[in-house]
Amino acid sequence: MANSFGQLFRITTWGESHGGGVGVVVDGCPPRLKLTEADIQPDLDRRRPGQSRIVTPRKEADRVEILSGTFEGRTLGTPISLWVRNEDARPEAYSEMKSKFRPSHADYTYFAKFGIRAWPGGGRSSARETIGRVAAGAIAKKILREKFAVEVLAYVKQVQRIIAEVDPDKVCFKDIESNIVRCPDQPAAAKMIRLIEKMRRVGDTVGGIVEGLARGVPAGWGAPVFDRLEADLGKAMLSLPASKGFEIGSGFGGIAMTGTQHNDQFRARGGKVFTTTNYSGGIQGGISNGQPIFFRVAFKPVATVMREQDTVDEQLANTTLTGRGRHDPCVLPRAVPLVEAMTALVLVDHALRHKAQCG
Amino acid sequence: MANSFGQLFRITTWGESHGGGVGVVVDGCPPRLKLTEADIQPDLDRRRPGQSRIVTPRKEADRVEILSGTFEGRTLGTPISLWVRNEDARPEAYSEMKSKFRPSHADYTYFAKFGIRAWPGGGRSSARETIGRVAAGAIAKKILREKFAVEVLAYVKQVQRIIAEVDPDKVCFKDIESNIVRCPDQPAAAKMIRLIEKMRRVGDTVGGIVEGLARGVPAGWGAPVFDRLEADLGKAMLSLPASKGFEIGSGFGGIAMTGTQHNDQFRARGGKVFTTTNYSGGIQGGISNGQPIFFRVAFKPVATVMREQDTVDEQLANTTLTGRGRHDPCVLPRAVPLVEAMTALVLVDHALRHKAQCG
Amino acid sequence: MANSFGQLFRITTWGESHGGGVGVVVDGCPPRLKLTEADIQPDLDRRRPGQSRIVTPRKEADRVEILSGTFEGRTLGTPISLWVRNEDARPEAYSEMKSKFRPSHADYTYFAKFGIRAWPGGGRSSARETIGRVAAGAIAKKILREKFAVEVLAYVKQVQRIIAEVDPDKVCFKDIESNIVRCPDQPAAAKMIRLIEKMRRVGDTVGGIVEGLARGVPAGWGAPVFDRLEADLGKAMLSLPASKGFEIGSGFGGIAMTGTQHNDQFRARGGKVFTTTNYSGGIQGGISNGQPIFFRVAFKPVATVMREQDTVDEQLANTTLTGRGRHDPCVLPRAVPLVEAMTALVLVDHALRHKAQCG
Amino acid sequence: MANSFGQLFRITTWGESHGGGVGVVVDGCPPRLKLTEADIQPDLDRRRPGQSRIVTPRKEADRVEILSGTFEGRTLGTPISLWVRNEDARPEAYSEMKSKFRPSHADYTYFAKFGIRAWPGGGRSSARETIGRVAAGAIAKKILREKFAVEVLAYVKQVQRIIAEVDPDKVCFKDIESNIVRCPDQPAAAKMIRLIEKMRRVGDTVGGIVEGLARGVPAGWGAPVFDRLEADLGKAMLSLPASKGFEIGSGFGGIAMTGTQHNDQFRARGGKVFTTTNYSGGIQGGISNGQPIFFRVAFKPVATVMREQDTVDEQLANTTLTGRGRHDPCVLPRAVPLVEAMTALVLVDHALRHKAQCG
Repeated sequence: MANSFGQLFRITTWGESHGGGVGVVVDGCPPRLKLTEADIQPDLDRRRPGQSRIVTPRKEADRVEILSGTFEGRTLGTPISLWVRNEDARPEAYSEMKSKFRPSHADYTYFAKFGIRAWPGGGRSSARETIGRVAAGAIAKKILREKFAVEVLAYVKQVQRIIAEVDPDKVCFKDIESNIVRCPDQPAAAKMIRLIEKMRRVGDTVGGIVEGLARGVPAGWGAPVFDRLEADLGKAMLSLPASKGFEIGSGFGGIAMTGTQHNDQFRARGGKVFTTTNYSGGIQGGISNGQPIFFRVAFKPVATVMREQDTVDEQLANTTLTGRGRHDPCVLPRAVPLVEAMTALVLVDHALRHKAQCG
Repeated sequence: MANSFGQLFRITTWGESHGGGVGVVVDGCPPRLKLTEADIQPDLDRRRPGQSRIVTPRKEADRVEILSGTFEGRTLGTPISLWVRNEDARPEAYSEMKSKFRPSHADYTYFAKFGIRAWPGGGRSSARETIGRVAAGAIAKKILREKFAVEVLAYVKQVQRIIAEVDPDKVCFKDIESNIVRCPDQPAAAKMIRLIEKMRRVGDTVGGIVEGLARGVPAGWGAPVFDRLEADLGKAMLSLPASKGFEIGSGFGGIAMTGTQHNDQFRARGGKVFTTTNYSGGIQGGISNGQPIFFRVAFKPVATVMREQDTVDEQLANTTLTGRGRHDPCVLPRAVPLVEAMTALVLVDHALRHKAQCG
Repeated sequence: MANSFGQLFRITTWGESHGGGVGVVVDGCPPRLKLTEADIQPDLDRRRPGQSRIVTPRKEADRVEILSGTFEGRTLGTPISLWVRNEDARPEAYSEMKSKFRPSHADYTYFAKFGIRAWPGGGRSSARETIGRVAAGAIAKKILREKFAVEVLAYVKQVQRIIAEVDPDKVCFKDIESNIVRCPDQPAAAKMIRLIEKMRRVGDTVGGIVEGLARGVPAGWGAPVFDRLEADLGKAMLSLPASKGFEIGSGFGGIAMTGTQHNDQFRARGGKVFTTTNYSGGIQGGISNGQPIFFRVAFKPVATVMREQDTVDEQLANTTLTGRGRHDPCVLPRAVPLVEAMTALVLVDHALRHKAQCG
Repeated sequence: MANSFGQLFRITTWGESHGGGVGVVVDGCPPRLKLTEADIQPDLDRRRPGQSRIVTPRKEADRVEILSGTFEGRTLGTPISLWVRNEDARPEAYSEMKSKFRPSHADYTYFAKFGIRAWPGGGRSSARETIGRVAAGAIAKKILREKFAVEVLAYVKQVQRIIAEVDPDKVCFKDIESNIVRCPDQPAAAKMIRLIEKMRRVGDTVGGIVEGLARGVPAGWGAPVFDRLEADLGKAMLSLPASKGFEIGSGFGGIAMTGTQHNDQFRARGGKVFTTTNYSGGIQGGISNGQPIFFRVAFKPVATVMREQDTVDEQLANTTLTGRGRHDPCVLPRAVPLVEAMTALVLVDHALRHKAQCG
């Protein structure tokens, strides 16, 4: 169903922006994995509002509680229920949204679909929904790291027209986390931060690209024909709020090349196969080939701007709406842990599926 | 599982390039729909090899047979089994591939995953697998047309650096089908054809972009949070052979804009809501907003080139391989019906899901 | 996955006997349904330990909280998260179970499967897990009642050898709830209560049969071939703790008849079709035929007895174990709301599926 | 969806009694398994009409063809498509059924659900649909035997009131197949055959019980809480045509016992755990405990009798209908391979699921 993701490592998220909180149930986790809140909280802190001067200021501690699925610090193999309470709920800040649809938000479409909407904070379409994903992703990353020696990373590759230079083979977590925009190219990061600060001052927003990366994935994960690894990664990324595009390996840029140029030729050394280029992005025919997997996700500039805009109200009368309250000038720094989380969820699911059929 | 797609309108494809044929089982089709082979064959003819001088010459009539699920020309509501025999199977043409992995094909990864591979024609990774998708998609398009007044179209938007000008609001099926490259911009089409012919002469290949389009989708289809309409469309497209990227609405290009520029402002007229721009591509918060849905799919230049390339063999020794036999210089003209099919499959599935929960 | 049930109205339960609580996420609920805790609590009270002198005395208020999915007292169409805290957790009462496997409990098999077990209270195999089912079932029953005019009932049909006489066409909720054993045949109920009280005194347990019933189901629900309505009902019932058998309509007893005797002949009156007998139990070919649906579920005598029994410990040494602490002499009175809940979950799921495909 | 069964070893069946044939697609089969038609045909022959004087005389060779998923006699890990043509289609024999609903058949309910029905031979509700299950089950049995040393058996335990004595620990395939009713108790078998022959002479039918058995299943297969092994077995059996009940281990008979009597006490010997009794039927808490798994399935007397019966027609007018043509006096001998097949499908699915999560 629509609020579940994954086949063997399946998560189900729940929760609205305002109300009892947000959470996730993780089903299918292998047993006996060491797991406490301390394994999960750091990623939630990286996703948290108010973490720096360039992100939305909502004040939420976002403390995760494990309600089930572990015993004496280890997973039981039963569903892991994770919960984060809502704290900074200020429905009054949204009173104007009660009857008006914010442009390019989900207000109108939720109303069109369900005939009802939780207007405070966007309800289910709020970015708070992604807390469950990040929490579950932290478990998935731990499994990948400990059981499969796979490392998942993500970083900001581009903010509007500022493009970072990053070597996917060498980039490391420390460099990514060394600045508040989560871009490992420090000069580019500085420019990005300046641009985002300017956007906050003028009440506007910018988008960009997050690059995701998985190193150490063995050849053989993925599954023809519909659940190709890149198809599942693409779905995962396109299910993120504000994402508008996904490309793997050479992506849209590969169109400029001919087949002869684009083919990744094989070589073998010491009983190991590798490719001399990696335009494929580590996946061929929907299955990993042992090379690093990398892809890019386009995020639009988020829709909440501090300007007056045309819109309609619930009675379908034309009106205007001026954004107020919290303003997130650029979603990318907080999208980084989210891209990591979704990548890890896809990979651990396929790792288990591969084990089931071919292990 | 990996060879099924869709939740309520679910297809399961089967078949290898060589062997008894390829087919699909369609489960969940509404009953009493008029359906005969004549509803399906035209799309298979548009996908067929040998249909023009710019596509692969494999000689297959690709005649579809309905084996079950209809009675006296109408659907029963039971599984529809569709079958196309393989005819032009020439395993001898692939004898060199028996022990060598073709670069950027799925030969190596299938072998790495399964420890066995059907080397003639690429086996399951052959484009013939998509016959089942196109056949099922023809049924889905018919349902959309007759029960929901939704029109699905696709066309070639770009071949390498040749970009067509197409107005998504006005483009029609006739214009798309008026030339062999399936590009409704006739001057661009002529250039594309010349480029593809040149590629065939030199034994190389080119990629490009297919644009997909759905008009008439009402507001409300799609489902937060993981099964967003664009996420399911993205997965559908990224499950196509040779696809490397997907973007919806403004896509990667929207990154250059600010939020103020990018927001689609609402207006109402005569009780109908619309947006004055459509950077969203017809989907907001994962749910259709009533505007046209459009997206682009990047296809790499296909991997079979008539050149000598480095590769390895099954014993992991370095060697070379020269492409021989059938050569498809550009997959795009035949990808058009495939993009349509997958679009229709996603939409009809969400139409039924919407009816179930909110109807 | 294993902790989810249903396709379109899907529930996912979580929680162990001891720990943060137990809960359920309900995905796919139609929007705009009036729903508060008051719609759910009564069924939890019927399932609650300590409700009468013939059930287990664990002291839990089992207060349900709706954490998400509603707004201003109506469902949003988004996941409904329900939570009940654990209160009366007394792990010390289970200290002997820490290293010994209780006979005919799930202690050994959980350990064999997962290599770890939450020994206090049986962990996930505790009957507390069913709280989530009952809570979700209360929502399902409300949908059936309000949107489809379908009534779901269950009652105790048999305790050990005491068999109640019940007319499935006439039995009503009030009669069922008029005594603590939930058997609408009052003389039989009195005997059952005496038997259960005796069992409690001697530290032993008894099993029996719960009969489930759905009236008002229209012809057409259900789905050939694997998801037959009786197959999904059967799975639902056999997923209940302590259940050992399921039969629909004539069930095992129908074996004594010949086809001529067993066939339910059709008659029509006033444009309505009915059958003159109902050995089919309201389902033919996996699809409801408009007659009342009824079935029986066999529950074994529960395994916790206050006697010394042979068993083994985690080191696989032979030993003995004497049951202590809470003793539930007969699970049947509390199984009644559970059978109702699972019945309702199956029916509402099929109602939505029918609407999607044939509506 | 309704025509698929299993999660990781998933089958999708298709086909009506009349039309292009019946078939199945098997997805998720492990690669490199030796597989040819010769592995499948014997079970189809055991299911085939006309195999003996006590079963329906429809003349079908039921020759299976593997259309995909194997290469050089081994499975590829891709979907295996199996097909059996329909041959003995005699729609004229059903002309009276064209407008009248056969009592206790699925004619009426299919029509109520779908608004259309394939009246010749019952269409999709025909027992021919089970051909796909038996074919897929033959593959599942092979995997269980070769990869897990698990043996699956089934036999006729009871025909009407004739009950066989069978020791589940000792019964073997050869004894079961030594007579045409597939009952390993030879004196009982003789009586059963006489009863069935009598029924054929008088144009009536009888039902009974098939007992299913799996030996060698290790402790740990199955999955709490909804996909308990007995719940999935129960669903599998209740999805069979004419089945009305399922019980595992002590089943309905266990109700007569107290908990003290019913508990299976554990003992260990040589590092192996076993139970001194097996009222649990090899499953506790939804997970196998290493003891033999056994269960019983009740089949009603089949509905086609050579008598005049009351019924209604499509215009809902009262009428009568007299059964003609092929008459199957007892479905049990042919249900035996079907029970085996469904048992094997459930077990192999859970074997793969166990490997994925806990392997």
